[in-house]
Amino acid sequence: MLRTQTCGELRLADAGKEVTLCGWVQKVRDKGGMVWIDLRDRYGITQLIFEEGQIATELVEQAKTVGREYVLKATGEVVERYAKNDKIPTGEIEIKVSELEVLNASKVPPFIIDNDTDGGEELRMKYRYLDLRREEVREKLMLRHKMLQATRSYLSDQSFMEVETPVLIKSTPEGARDFVVPSRVNKGEFYALPQSPQTFKQLLMVSGFDRYFQIVKCFRDEDLRADRQPEFTQIDCEMSFVTQEDILNTFEGLTRHLFKQALDVEVGEFVQMQYDDAMRLYGSDKPDVRFGMPFVELNAVVQNKGFNVFDQAELVVGICAEGCADWTRKQLDALTDFVKRPQVGAKGLVYVKCNADGTFKSSVDKFYSQEDLKTWASQAEAKPGDLILVLSGDLNATRKQMCELRLHMGDLLELKDPMNFKPLWVLDFPLLEWDEETERYHAMHHPFTSPKPDEIPLLDTDPGKVHANAYDLVINGVEIGGGSIRIHDRATQAMMFKHLGFSDEEAKEQFGFLMDAFEYGAPPHGGIAFGFDRLCSMFGGSDSIRDFIAFPKNTSARDVMIESPSPIAKDQLDELGLDLLPAE
Amino acid sequence: MLRTQTCGELRLADAGKEVTLCGWVQKVRDKGGMVWIDLRDRYGITQLIFEEGQIATELVEQAKTVGREYVLKATGEVVERYAKNDKIPTGEIEIKVSELEVLNASKVPPFIIDNDTDGGEELRMKYRYLDLRREEVREKLMLRHKMLQATRSYLSDQSFMEVETPVLIKSTPEGARDFVVPSRVNKGEFYALPQSPQTFKQLLMVSGFDRYFQIVKCFRDEDLRADRQPEFTQIDCEMSFVTQEDILNTFEGLTRHLFKQALDVEVGEFVQMQYDDAMRLYGSDKPDVRFGMPFVELNAVVQNKGFNVFDQAELVVGICAEGCADWTRKQLDALTDFVKRPQVGAKGLVYVKCNADGTFKSSVDKFYSQEDLKTWASQAEAKPGDLILVLSGDLNATRKQMCELRLHMGDLLELKDPMNFKPLWVLDFPLLEWDEETERYHAMHHPFTSPKPDEIPLLDTDPGKVHANAYDLVINGVEIGGGSIRIHDRATQAMMFKHLGFSDEEAKEQFGFLMDAFEYGAPPHGGIAFGFDRLCSMFGGSDSIRDFIAFPKNTSARDVMIESPSPIAKDQLDELGLDLLPAE
Repeated sequence: MLRTQTCGELRLADAGKEVTLCGWVQKVRDKGGMVWIDLRDRYGITQLIFEEGQIATELVEQAKTVGREYVLKATGEVVERYAKNDKIPTGEIEIKVSELEVLNASKVPPFIIDNDTDGGEELRMKYRYLDLRREEVREKLMLRHKMLQATRSYLSDQSFMEVETPVLIKSTPEGARDFVVPSRVNKGEFYALPQSPQTFKQLLMVSGFDRYFQIVKCFRDEDLRADRQPEFTQIDCEMSFVTQEDILNTFEGLTRHLFKQALDVEVGEFVQMQYDDAMRLYGSDKPDVRFGMPFVELNAVVQNKGFNVFDQAELVVGICAEGCADWTRKQLDALTDFVKRPQVGAKGLVYVKCNADGTFKSSVDKFYSQEDLKTWASQAEAKPGDLILVLSGDLNATRKQMCELRLHMGDLLELKDPMNFKPLWVLDFPLLEWDEETERYHAMHHPFTSPKPDEIPLLDTDPGKVHANAYDLVINGVEIGGGSIRIHDRATQAMMFKHLGFSDEEAKEQFGFLMDAFEYGAPPHGGIAFGFDRLCSMFGGSDSIRDFIAFPKNTSARDVMIESPSPIAKDQLDELGLDLLPAE
Repeated sequence: MLRTQTCGELRLADAGKEVTLCGWVQKVRDKGGMVWIDLRDRYGITQLIFEEGQIATELVEQAKTVGREYVLKATGEVVERYAKNDKIPTGEIEIKVSELEVLNASKVPPFIIDNDTDGGEELRMKYRYLDLRREEVREKLMLRHKMLQATRSYLSDQSFMEVETPVLIKSTPEGARDFVVPSRVNKGEFYALPQSPQTFKQLLMVSGFDRYFQIVKCFRDEDLRADRQPEFTQIDCEMSFVTQEDILNTFEGLTRHLFKQALDVEVGEFVQMQYDDAMRLYGSDKPDVRFGMPFVELNAVVQNKGFNVFDQAELVVGICAEGCADWTRKQLDALTDFVKRPQVGAKGLVYVKCNADGTFKSSVDKFYSQEDLKTWASQAEAKPGDLILVLSGDLNATRKQMCELRLHMGDLLELKDPMNFKPLWVLDFPLLEWDEETERYHAMHHPFTSPKPDEIPLLDTDPGKVHANAYDLVINGVEIGGGSIRIHDRATQAMMFKHLGFSDEEAKEQFGFLMDAFEYGAPPHGGIAFGFDRLCSMFGGSDSIRDFIAFPKNTSARDVMIESPSPIAKDQLDELGLDLLPAE
């Protein structure tokens, strides 16, 4: 190695040693006859010192010529520092440099390479290789590295076998939009990039692999949102001869292991909640249970008292904000404004202050007596000093609005500590969901999810009521993973495709290989997949998955650093048998 | 779990236990009032027994109805076996079944699911999920699993940081043909799938990540050969502040670790050889050094003796086959036929038998005296009893032919034990190679490889003579990995592109981001990539990489199981702004 040590490892005990360090110039200070350079590498920062009179004047002069981000190789003696820096592990020593080589110069970087940078998002993405030099960015990717290793070692120890499934697969119209890859050898035909290795992992169960895992890139050509990337990474797992409970236990184990290994955190209980309850109590299939404030349905106590808005509502629902009875008019108005935002979409907000003296003050005093409001409070388990917030309207819309309001209250009351981790299994998702646009049922999870056996008859009469052996792992209101017990016999799978509107022919063309496989001794099996980018960002206490991806794409699916996608040459298109349609 | 144990774990000490096993029917035997079933899972085989009189008749009858590859769940008592089977770890016990559930039936498989199968390649690929049930296939993928884990844990322990680089990148005309992915959001533009993460790993060095690794899928749209796949897996690594020697040491360490972990093999010395010597002594940049038989150049001793063929040859080269002087006419004729095959392409073969009595017998006795032949023998270090084989002609062609002949002799003399591993570093590859077709120099490794500093002036005068800091790891004649010390400054990189025939504009458009990055403090760095599929097949003692890939494609780049690639819908093409050219 060009160095004898890294910039992070020298301590007072090393004083007297002759060492060679390599790294980047973080800072140069030049004062009187002294020059100090902070030399940085991935492992830390070590101070170099050049003192007039102690060393050759040329060396001091050379030190003065280096700029930020120059790459240096410096040889010298480890000496105890006069002014110690207890903020860094190497802060007790410095290197009295006797030999300095500039390995590479640097132009002035387009932004300050420090946690506290002046670079905007776009600039940092264009020069991502410089952004990655910042400690906080590198630490995020180091966390990701640790989680990658910890995941694989845990699963390997549990007899999971890592199998790499193909990237060039087959396009199917089911699910999100595929990225496709034109074939040159088979002109006019296309591969697709996998949205997940779903069918392959099921085939591996048919193969008797028993337990499979892979940390794998997946692809979806969807319109992007802040937390979505066209390519993303998934921890993908499948097990044979299991019940749902076995899967929950196994992956609670993995999750606990990751918290312990990556963050040294012991998480508490993994609460289990039915999907229907999650919707009823939190208006969401991924409730944030770091705090309470469950929904209280108030229809029975508020209707038929002459207040038209409530009387006509399918749902009247409240939450109780503890100790907020003293909120000001201004605060309450702000809440009303919040729920009226187009993104939330409520028409208005009703409040009831449960005063400390036992009286009530509400925005609907015209319609409700103190006695009425007392019933509300009792229903909502509100104590004197609490504030009840009520929304009303259509069931689904109102639940969604109240979910937003509850999360907003969680923010306002600072109940959402990102490093307080509350895992939750949401169970028994509906099998199907109605799609207004295509006017048919879609698989809520995917078409391979098994319906609850005793509900199968409902498929013919009331398909929307059928539940699935499907589960999500939710942490702090974020969906971290999801999976299901799969269908493992041809007849059920064929029936499922039929209910999803596939003709026999379509089912066979797209998934014939899987249905065939089910006829050769497919074992009962189930699995789960974790969104690894999101898992990392949650572990890092951040909302942005992009920060945890080394080279992310922007919201136009572009890599602005390498300038991709880009046009390709005409002869490349010809070879693929393709032509560009004229621009619209 | 549906089972209490796997089919591989019960032993005599478990006798008396009540257990439940799940697995596949490997074999059913039905004799008199007894039925035996061999139940198989990934972990082993356990015998089930059903005995008339001992258990309900219905249960015995039920056992008789199951067929091969049925999936069963069987509960019963572990009992000592009467006729023990010492070939399997569970051979001392069997399960006296008291409850049997058929979890899934199976049609008769299209081929026998056993190591000794009757399924041809194509059939097994179509039903790859059944082929994967065969123990020898599963063992290959288990070896791959182990090597994956061992690679990552070794590199992590050596401070290598795993970073996932993007799959949707940018197409460049350099190197092999790219697979491309049309962008819907950016119509008319394309991503490319990476042939390797080369530029990204170099950027990570610029970012100060110091040591990077990734086990990563790469893609090349090339015409396929038996040992090539359109998608393949690479162990990809890069290090900063290193010399070539540091990289060789580090990856000798990794290779040794893998041999130890996966095969419990301690490999011997990693011999180092110059590229020029490899070509001179073995006619190959990947010599198989499990056996000797180095080339001996004979021009000086054979020319100017009146034998025209030799006199006109640029190279006359021999190998000495120990103890083969007694080969028959037939054997020697077969050798001549071998070298005359179009794949080898020699015009003929000259031999010299060094007889046990000290005399010589050659196919060119007309031109050479016993004294002449003695000189040859002395040159070739041939002893009495040895056979010298000689080829002649143009330098490069003759070396290639002799390389083939030497390897063929290795086969005939059984010197190529696949489990005798002889690693070799081939060093100092040429920087450039002349391409007849395009009439220009191409980078032999890739355009980011650094030339030997003292040979840089030759770039202007005799570019073919410039060597690079580039190295390959070769084991048993197979190129396992290759890498180089990279260029890390803009000026050298720009000069390199110029010599490769890039205009300034082309260089900037395709690799501007990398050249820009070199201006912001790029450290000296280098790396290596291992072909992981090939590494696995070599560890498994096999020539076929396809056997070590769970779902390989055939030589037409098709996945015959899922039937991919396949046509896509017109509206999908429309969305991408593409049209198919009419078929030629």
